[in-house]
Amino acid sequence: VGAADTWVEVPDGSQFPVDNLPFGVFSRANEAARVGVAIGDQVLDLAPLLDDAVFAEPSLNAFMAQGRSVWRRTRSRLTDLITAGRHRASVEPHLVPANGIRLRRPVDIGDYVDFYSSRNHAENVGRIFRPDSDPLPPNWLHLPVGYQGRAGTVVASGTPVIRPCGQRREPGAPSPSFGPSLRLDFEAEVGFVVGAPSRLGRPVPISDFAEHVFGVVLVNDWSARDLQAWEYVPLGPFLGKSFATSVSSWVVTLDALEAARVRQPAQVPRPLPYLAGEEPWGLDLSLEVSLNGEIVSRPPFAAMYWTAAQQLAHLTVNGASVRTGDLYASGTVSGPSLEQWGSLIELTSNGREQLKLAGGSTRGFLEDGDTVTMTATAPSLGGGRLGFGELTGTIQPAVLPGGGAVSS
Amino acid sequence: VGAADTWVEVPDGSQFPVDNLPFGVFSRANEAARVGVAIGDQVLDLAPLLDDAVFAEPSLNAFMAQGRSVWRRTRSRLTDLITAGRHRASVEPHLVPANGIRLRRPVDIGDYVDFYSSRNHAENVGRIFRPDSDPLPPNWLHLPVGYQGRAGTVVASGTPVIRPCGQRREPGAPSPSFGPSLRLDFEAEVGFVVGAPSRLGRPVPISDFAEHVFGVVLVNDWSARDLQAWEYVPLGPFLGKSFATSVSSWVVTLDALEAARVRQPAQVPRPLPYLAGEEPWGLDLSLEVSLNGEIVSRPPFAAMYWTAAQQLAHLTVNGASVRTGDLYASGTVSGPSLEQWGSLIELTSNGREQLKLAGGSTRGFLEDGDTVTMTATAPSLGGGRLGFGELTGTIQPAVLPGGGAVSS
Repeated sequence: VGAADTWVEVPDGSQFPVDNLPFGVFSRANEAARVGVAIGDQVLDLAPLLDDAVFAEPSLNAFMAQGRSVWRRTRSRLTDLITAGRHRASVEPHLVPANGIRLRRPVDIGDYVDFYSSRNHAENVGRIFRPDSDPLPPNWLHLPVGYQGRAGTVVASGTPVIRPCGQRREPGAPSPSFGPSLRLDFEAEVGFVVGAPSRLGRPVPISDFAEHVFGVVLVNDWSARDLQAWEYVPLGPFLGKSFATSVSSWVVTLDALEAARVRQPAQVPRPLPYLAGEEPWGLDLSLEVSLNGEIVSRPPFAAMYWTAAQQLAHLTVNGASVRTGDLYASGTVSGPSLEQWGSLIELTSNGREQLKLAGGSTRGFLEDGDTVTMTATAPSLGGGRLGFGELTGTIQPAVLPGGGAVSS
Repeated sequence: VGAADTWVEVPDGSQFPVDNLPFGVFSRANEAARVGVAIGDQVLDLAPLLDDAVFAEPSLNAFMAQGRSVWRRTRSRLTDLITAGRHRASVEPHLVPANGIRLRRPVDIGDYVDFYSSRNHAENVGRIFRPDSDPLPPNWLHLPVGYQGRAGTVVASGTPVIRPCGQRREPGAPSPSFGPSLRLDFEAEVGFVVGAPSRLGRPVPISDFAEHVFGVVLVNDWSARDLQAWEYVPLGPFLGKSFATSVSSWVVTLDALEAARVRQPAQVPRPLPYLAGEEPWGLDLSLEVSLNGEIVSRPPFAAMYWTAAQQLAHLTVNGASVRTGDLYASGTVSGPSLEQWGSLIELTSNGREQLKLAGGSTRGFLEDGDTVTMTATAPSLGGGRLGFGELTGTIQPAVLPGGGAVSS
């Protein structure tokens, strides 16, 4: 289906052409939040359009739980409704202008897992956090390293991010001090949303990836590097990450990304059989990260070492189940060259080489008032490109445990 | 209120005397799961007794969300109902014999966090996992080290635990192998259930602990030591833990544990102000761990270095919010002497010194068919002791990714 075939007005270069159809949750003033699909500058209000109560819910969970055949049937039905001119009169009343709506977090998150699957990122960060060891830990080429994150603090795009307080230890100091993080960072990531659950005790084979994963979002895994560095040995990141994780408003389905599928980079050593899939599940997504409106990085998702299909096979191989609404993220997306690195700790060599911004300002890490925005595009089925909308968040001053705000 | 004051028949030595009144979720054949309170060998069926729909829910969440004043008013009302003889005729029809019911997981888990707050355990395990470093990492005496666990695989007592498969690397081997865990372990822990939520961005002061935490459960943090050892650097435990975490059926309220409160062991160095509470929140719980019916450990919870109040203050100090149903566990409870160590990896020095069991059998780690049972008692308000019921789980053979069962 080409982008030209719809009767809906879609501006040239829109992130939401007819072959995207991402799902989200929106509301208008005094109306309940409900499921919508983006097309051009408008949103299809699905509950009345399809007369189906799953779309009247304030999250995608009920719809996603129905499984892949329903996802595909719904996509196919929507495509018919917005391409066949005979439906125009009945569909048009259910098109809502996007500029009058508020977008919500699209999913009630079950478990949130964060991986670490960019080799460039792992090597960059390994050199910074563990200068005396190999940058890649011995397990890294054998399995997609990951950890459980905090699901309760996954927030919608646009939610302000309050600078976290916590313990950090200055290099050489005998004991830690307490205060607002001085090394607040973003991480540009891609997230995968589980639609169909699995059974406890039954690993999901790598070939079943698309039966379980509904779609893809952008993720900003905000990170307080000073808190993280002090706390993370031996049990991993905790307060350095758990204060906020932002997800984009629109979930782009795997079906919409069919033309973006690519083979991942070669894996040496060869992965164990449970991680060896036949189907290519690399995704050719081009990310952009802006700081206060200025592009500071262009991470290429196609360069990721481990795919989302491998990540799902790994995270369930011990029998752990997935639930509808589970979210797992790729880890920071960083390509081989500096302008492709997806976090400030990499872009500034842990703050040592300030980033020079337009207007003469510089940044080591994020300052209060800074706004970080992430976007991504990918080849679409019709031969153009589709997008994910904007994932954005602005840093607010820390609140000390007593309650007062402080400036950093 | 003494245990003798109730008109309900409570057998001598019952874990559920009149001053316990733990909350759980039960069902009878063909009836919906709902909230009950244990007393002696019976369960009070709260929804009809108190004519309140929150108790007709299949979890404690709706009740717990109402906050401490409601928890206390409910406890006080229940105490009146089962002690004043004038209520007997109206209450007795709502007493259900415990032997005819099925107990469920009492809480819909939000986020699950696992701490590492026994100094003896941390030192024992540090020596095993990191023989070339200090057993305590540098941060350990400054903050309660913890990590996010998998909420979706927190299961009810009695749920079978399938031996997980995964990657492990034998000492000296060049690359990992795959298969059922050969070092499957239990960890005896105490868990804290959040009732009243907090706001994102607002740390919970240590003095507000009892405003948020509803009660206490027993936790078995099943652990695959071989998977864990291979995966946990640098981002912490993941598949070595995420396959199953068992929680006990009855939630003992903080109010019921008032007589069990003790001052924790001295903390040197002195904790930072946000971790320094005036009120004693150590808890004098005596745990017992049985393997196939034989007691193998008696961990003393009063010996824990970090309290649950400190843990809550720490996990929210960065602004992370807690939700109704969040569960956080203490970490393995181990006392100073061998018979008080709460995991097999400690009791057997990582499998090197087999545990000798009655009948001549031995164990390094858990075998298929093994049943692990945990219990705990504590001083009760009436001068006797109260208990938590039994937390139990039996190991079932691994299921390979293809689907077949294997023996270990």
